[in-house]
Amino acid sequence: MKRITRRQMLAPMGLAAGSCVLSSCLSRNMATSPGKDPKTGFPWPYAELDPDVTAERAYGDCAKGHCMYGVFAAVVVQLADKHGEPYRGFPVDMMRYGAGGTGGSGSLCGALNGSAALFGLFARSEEQTKQFISELFLWYEQKELPVFVPRKPIVDVEVALSVSNSILCHASVSRWSATSGHKAFSQPRKERCRRLTADTARKTVEILNTGFTGEYTARMESTEEDKGCMSCHTKGSELSNTRGTMSCGNCHFSLAKDHPALTPGR
Amino acid sequence: MKRITRRQMLAPMGLAAGSCVLSSCLSRNMATSPGKDPKTGFPWPYAELDPDVTAERAYGDCAKGHCMYGVFAAVVVQLADKHGEPYRGFPVDMMRYGAGGTGGSGSLCGALNGSAALFGLFARSEEQTKQFISELFLWYEQKELPVFVPRKPIVDVEVALSVSNSILCHASVSRWSATSGHKAFSQPRKERCRRLTADTARKTVEILNTGFTGEYTARMESTEEDKGCMSCHTKGSELSNTRGTMSCGNCHFSLAKDHPALTPGR
Repeated sequence: MKRITRRQMLAPMGLAAGSCVLSSCLSRNMATSPGKDPKTGFPWPYAELDPDVTAERAYGDCAKGHCMYGVFAAVVVQLADKHGEPYRGFPVDMMRYGAGGTGGSGSLCGALNGSAALFGLFARSEEQTKQFISELFLWYEQKELPVFVPRKPIVDVEVALSVSNSILCHASVSRWSATSGHKAFSQPRKERCRRLTADTARKTVEILNTGFTGEYTARMESTEEDKGCMSCHTKGSELSNTRGTMSCGNCHFSLAKDHPALTPGR
Repeated sequence: MKRITRRQMLAPMGLAAGSCVLSSCLSRNMATSPGKDPKTGFPWPYAELDPDVTAERAYGDCAKGHCMYGVFAAVVVQLADKHGEPYRGFPVDMMRYGAGGTGGSGSLCGALNGSAALFGLFARSEEQTKQFISELFLWYEQKELPVFVPRKPIVDVEVALSVSNSILCHASVSRWSATSGHKAFSQPRKERCRRLTADTARKTVEILNTGFTGEYTARMESTEEDKGCMSCHTKGSELSNTRGTMSCGNCHFSLAKDHPALTPGR
């Protein structure tokens, strides 16, 4: 019986393989994954994407499946369109769960959750995943957003910019509502979140494009105010009674009367 | 040339398929997925799991890959062990990203993020995903946890119970630290989070086991205090200046002086 190659077996089927470990599945121009487990093929390889193209795709994908899906699909479906497996087999529709800060709960911004999931899929180590997430989350907290303007707006309005000071959906939305004067369930707010999803996808791809080259440097850092809070409350500190890197002051805007004064005006 | 079946092609390769649309891949005793897209096979079918077995697995998996991975792997790898594809091909290691409230940021509890991802993968509609997430998140906010006791504890200590009043990692940890007297990066705190991950995986499987039977009823609801907040601040209300279902009072414990008095003691 004539032996057939693995490539011959798979090609005519357009087979959906979630964790393809066959070298023939992977385009030759893709980034390799040092540290990849030969049994599971994890982490998946990443191939450079165009940030502008990704942002436009995320804007459209957000309209289809909300914010987390918007970022995740813009990257994984784009890679599937270019390279096939293993990307094509990923059940991207599951990522609709992140909408509205996870099932409408208003917690972690879904666009950020989608980006973090991508870092989890592509980064070479847990430490690298954390570095990429930290860079993106600090950018999201501190920058005036959204700056993305779509070629064909779904809602053609002037979208106000705001600094969220938070990675939480409900806080980010409230801050934007206060700045723009639009309500939290208005059409302009939905347009703002689609554009913010595009911005987040662009930033995510910028991090991934440079993250594996050896030229990657983190650019963002916590504010001086947050560093002050963490110096007493997080790992290795005197109190060590919490954890995390989220900006503190957006929620803890009113400290107890007996709290030591750290920052003027608080 | 002799035609070979798809089963013959795949079996000897032990092929990892992320979105297997072949009926031969699926065990006959599995729950069907009404509304499944025949092209993508989404949503994936769910087969009933034992909550106790799942909790023990989640406790061990949390020790391997942290909280989000703990819940997600306990379900998906268990299904892969029983049914093979499409579960075997899912790159479960990506879920390590949810550790410490997503990359250590302290936002959404990773165990909850893992559960929500499972609901996104298995629920038959976005609305059902939201219902399952809401039930789980309210349970997590309002119950004294953790109640799980492992057969072979990694750290054999008495673990204090606390009510988190929050779905956020850093708030949940702080509340437990205040109750137990243990620091946020101590071994007892890590043991508490492993047990909480087990509890969350058990509750997730209880929801999934009943969620598709037509007998499912949501049991949890927001507190009267939170309903009071939402009556003015969320969808359809007078202000409509935020969104979400998270418990309010854990962060907004000190309202502005001119805020209308809604609840005695605030």
